[in-house]
Amino acid sequence: MIDILCPGMQPPKGAFLSMEGMDGCGKTTQLNLLTRGLEQCGYEVVHSREPGGCPISEKIRELVLDKNNIEMCMETEALLYAASRAQHVRQVIRPTMAAGKLLLCDRFVDSSVAYQGAGRELGTALISAINAPAVDGTMPDATVFLSIDRKEALRRRCAATDPDRIELAGDDFHSRVEAGYHQLIDSDPRRWIVVDASRTPEEIADEVLTRVLDRLEEVEA
Amino acid sequence: MIDILCPGMQPPKGAFLSMEGMDGCGKTTQLNLLTRGLEQCGYEVVHSREPGGCPISEKIRELVLDKNNIEMCMETEALLYAASRAQHVRQVIRPTMAAGKLLLCDRFVDSSVAYQGAGRELGTALISAINAPAVDGTMPDATVFLSIDRKEALRRRCAATDPDRIELAGDDFHSRVEAGYHQLIDSDPRRWIVVDASRTPEEIADEVLTRVLDRLEEVEA
Repeated sequence: MIDILCPGMQPPKGAFLSMEGMDGCGKTTQLNLLTRGLEQCGYEVVHSREPGGCPISEKIRELVLDKNNIEMCMETEALLYAASRAQHVRQVIRPTMAAGKLLLCDRFVDSSVAYQGAGRELGTALISAINAPAVDGTMPDATVFLSIDRKEALRRRCAATDPDRIELAGDDFHSRVEAGYHQLIDSDPRRWIVVDASRTPEEIADEVLTRVLDRLEEVEA
Repeated sequence: MIDILCPGMQPPKGAFLSMEGMDGCGKTTQLNLLTRGLEQCGYEVVHSREPGGCPISEKIRELVLDKNNIEMCMETEALLYAASRAQHVRQVIRPTMAAGKLLLCDRFVDSSVAYQGAGRELGTALISAINAPAVDGTMPDATVFLSIDRKEALRRRCAATDPDRIELAGDDFHSRVEAGYHQLIDSDPRRWIVVDASRTPEEIADEVLTRVLDRLEEVEA
């Protein structure tokens, strides 16, 4: 597969990719497969995640995902995600891109818009205002969306051994999150790579790698 | 003093006071003296502080004031203060006011504007945008500003046994913070009670209590 997909391609001068999807969409598996595929094509991939990705952001992650913090209000949650992101952008994402590497991030600002803006019904405008100083113009060159039926995602979440505070939220919440993602995709279709994630991991990985490499070629061009 | 200042005054139906000033202005002493004075006048005072004031906000406070987090960027700091505030407003300030009590807060959003907006030079507009969803219209009925010469404040800070990360910032930073406070005071003079804090603690406390009681009468009227 790999030899056919990347015939002598040269690594780009830094790029930023993110992967998004509903909890239970198989994102962790696909991030690992995409990392391996890109590395086999000669890319130096730095794997990161949000919330988190650097020591201060990981401390914020612990706070926001701690199931004991049930009294956390929606606005606090949204501001903590943005705080984590502000640090991650400056301490990890920008330096990685500046070093000519490919930063592959498990979730980015789109998750805040979908989960807090749509899911928690705080509104897209409010989430955008909070995140503007955090992101400060640093957006992914491409974002992979693993599209999966909501019922299937729910089934997988329930099978998880230790679901966190966000994953434990109800189906109405996740329905709004799904709608939030589709609004984002519709508003900027060029950035998004939407992939049917109901197939086997290998089938999904093949399509993701092919389309990501195409996009990276465009970015370099 | 107390008997003259509060002749049979009835407690109001909930009020919100904050106290502000440069680090080293004597705020802790004055908060304690004001609390005692108001309680002697029959007010049920709930004493709180920012960042902090409730368990989640105190965890955020630990993170933002930890001297080990020297790599924390300015935007992260500002967003963490706002996150702490969002929780504090909803979990402490509003319920306290709704219960007819007087909430006396050690620092509020003005500190963010002065310290992050002016001191860290992030700008007032950015700090206001971040804090709008945190504060959500809940502002103090009155804010006491303990005005002290910057050099004197610096002397006191240096004498502190364990200054935190913010207190350790340089004199240029504190000069901008001071200017930030004065801009806030000029833009909304009615809310601010500016007191000369170079005098003895008792003299300061007398003026603060007198002027706060006057303001509370106006609020109740």
